[in-house]
Order: sequence, then C-alpha cells, then structure tokens
Amino acid sequence: MSRAIVLLSGGLDSAVTLAHSVHEGNENIALSFSYGQRHTRELDSARAVAGHYGVKHITINIDLSEFRSSLIGRSGEVEKDRENIGRNIPDTYVPARNMIMLSIAVGLCESMDAEAIYIGANAVDYSGYPDCRREFFDSLTDTIRKGTKAGAEGRPIRIGTPILDMSKAEIIKLGKRLNAPLHLTWSCYGGGERACGHCDSCMLRLKGFKDAGYEDEVTYE
Amino acid sequence: MSRAIVLLSGGLDSAVTLAHSVHEGNENIALSFSYGQRHTRELDSARAVAGHYGVKHITINIDLSEFRSSLIGRSGEVEKDRENIGRNIPDTYVPARNMIMLSIAVGLCESMDAEAIYIGANAVDYSGYPDCRREFFDSLTDTIRKGTKAGAEGRPIRIGTPILDMSKAEIIKLGKRLNAPLHLTWSCYGGGERACGHCDSCMLRLKGFKDAGYEDEVTYE
Repeated sequence: MSRAIVLLSGGLDSAVTLAHSVHEGNENIALSFSYGQRHTRELDSARAVAGHYGVKHITINIDLSEFRSSLIGRSGEVEKDRENIGRNIPDTYVPARNMIMLSIAVGLCESMDAEAIYIGANAVDYSGYPDCRREFFDSLTDTIRKGTKAGAEGRPIRIGTPILDMSKAEIIKLGKRLNAPLHLTWSCYGGGERACGHCDSCMLRLKGFKDAGYEDEVTYE
Repeated sequence: MSRAIVLLSGGLDSAVTLAHSVHEGNENIALSFSYGQRHTRELDSARAVAGHYGVKHITINIDLSEFRSSLIGRSGEVEKDRENIGRNIPDTYVPARNMIMLSIAVGLCESMDAEAIYIGANAVDYSGYPDCRREFFDSLTDTIRKGTKAGAEGRPIRIGTPILDMSKAEIIKLGKRLNAPLHLTWSCYGGGERACGHCDSCMLRLKGFKDAGYEDEVTYE
C-alpha cells in the first residue's frame, strides 16, 4: 500500500481519479485548492466526494486574484456554447494552475511521506490547456526528482495520470464501474446554483454522459 | 526593456538580485510570499527594499501550515551554530518551496505579460537545499515551456539566476557595487527583534560580510 496525494477539484475527472486510487488500495489524502475560483461550489463537491470515501481532505488557500483568467474573480463572463473546443487555449485557462497545484502537492508529499500524486488531467477532451499534456507531466517529474529532498535521497515522487488518455465517455464508464459518486461532482464553470449546460466544461460533461449511455444526475438550468 | 518578476524574500540575496535586474534596465515587479514563515520580519524588509526601488510589490498569501519544516509555524526551534553547513539538507528546508514560488511567478508572468523571472538562489553557500541547483532550474525551464500558454505560443519564460554561482562575499560585493540597500535586508531564520547570529542564515551572512571586507549594518543579539 502506498500513500498518495490525490488532487480533488470536486469535478468529475478528479472524483474518478480518486476512485481509481482507492481501488488500487492506496492510502489517500485528498487535496483541494481555494484560489478565488468563481465556481466555489466545486469545493463543496470535493468535500462531499472525500467524505464519501472517508479520506483525509486538505484544502489549501492561495490567493491568485492577480492572475488573468475568466475563472477567477467576479468580473467577466465564461464563454458559452463555444465551438471548436480543444482547438485553441480558452480564456478559462488559469496560468500555470496545474504546475502550482502539483508543486504544492509535492511539498505535501515530502511533508507526509507520500510517494505519489494523482491528478485527473485529461489530454483528449482537454479543452485546450497546455498543462494537461503528457510531455508536461514527464518534464515536471524530472524537475521534482532534481528539486526535492525526496529526489536527492533516491525516493522520487511519482505523478499518476490514470485518465490522461481517456475520452470523457470512457472516464464516466470507469467511474460507473468503480462506483464513483458521480452525482456528487460539479463541473460547471459558472457560479450558479445549477449547472449552466453551456460552458466548455458542461458541454464536455453532457456529451460524455450521452456517449457513455448514462444519465447525468446533476441538474441543469 | 523586459518586464520581469523578481522573487523578493527580504533577504540579502534577493535584494541583490533585484538590484541586478534594476541595473539591467528591466521593468520589475517584486513578488513576496507570506506562507507562515516564523521570520515574518523578512516581509517588512521585502516591502522596504521594493519601496527603495519604487517597484510594484505583490505579496501572495499561501497557507503551508501542513508542511513539515522548522521554518514554518511556532513550534520547534531552528538549529543553531550548525557545523558542516551545506553537507546535508537541514530541517529549515521547506519542501518544494522554490518550485511552488516559481510556479506562482510563472502564472503571474503569463497574467502580466512578463518575460522573465529572477530568483536569488545560490548554489555555493546554498545551505544544502536541493532546489537551489542549476539542474533544477534547467529542468523547470523545460517544464514551463511545455506547460504554459506562453510556451505553447513560442514565448518561453526565462528563469534568471544571476547570483547562483557566487559566494556570499561576491554577492555582497556586487550589492555594494550596485548600491543595493543591504541595510534594509533581513536574513535571520529566528522570529526575534534582532538577528540571532547563530542560525545557518546568520552565520553565512556574517561570514560573507567578513570575507567581503564590509561591515554588516544589521544589528545582532
């Protein structure tokens, strides 16, 4: 049994990633970030998913209010009904977000003697984010090996990306097979009470459920 | 003229690094972190040094209270009068600190259209930290290129480490030559009103001033 830090946003992908790590038999610590995202509702979902599995859940506050992204702060609007998802980098891109979160997870790994970090990044329906590609994770793994006490002492930290190459439909099917609590997850980028159904994240989720042949239990506007 | 983010801890090395970037003619934005360090006094110094140069100064709060390090929180003691500085990794090591700070600086670079990040890391009198070595910075530069929008669009972000290979005495001499406000800087790891003179950081500083042939204007216990 390994000890693992699992990044848990509260979205569908990270919930399935946690389900995968639980299924592998790891001792899991879920890690969420409050960084000023519009959709704080996903943090409630993260708490619910962690609670479902009874794993320790850490939320780290980090103030990214100086960052330029339509996901952060109150101003601006998230793009809706966007065509060509995945073709270019959308304005919901949060600069260096995965690098920041993974770096903090690395520090926690060293502090808690964990051996692996799991992240539910996805390069297929990846919505155009550069920090969701395998070459980024490979390079970061090398950086971690060179820049940490764990790496210097021959105990490199592993980054696990179990759903990197899956389509959204495959992720949903895996989640269903592992009995992941998909009904507790939250994907919408908007700040509303119900999912908007029109942002990139909602559109990818809805298409995924349709392609997988399951019904999405989350309610939409 | 380039726009640059300069990591400014309030210590001597980062102040000389800012002086260097000012001397190069860059448009500088100083970046500090409040992460629960015992020696919050260094943040006052960071403010004073940024004020001396009249540059924009951003302090980002990040809660690392779950991290294991003698530099964080109220409990524990920083080791004093340690022999063999640089031989092994000391308990003041903050896991992945430079990776975390540089990742956040990368996000700010992208948000503010800056081209470079300057960090006053030092591999000579480096006190044993693995994230102060050139191979770490080289690897991280590759990771940044692969994981950012700037990198994907062919505008890679540069990490500048102007004092990486200098001895403490050489850093102090450079600071004196550039008229850096060394009297405003703070190096001590302890949380006291005056510098303790016995932690790794004080010992390296005192030896540096002695070797450089200058008097340290900071007062010691």
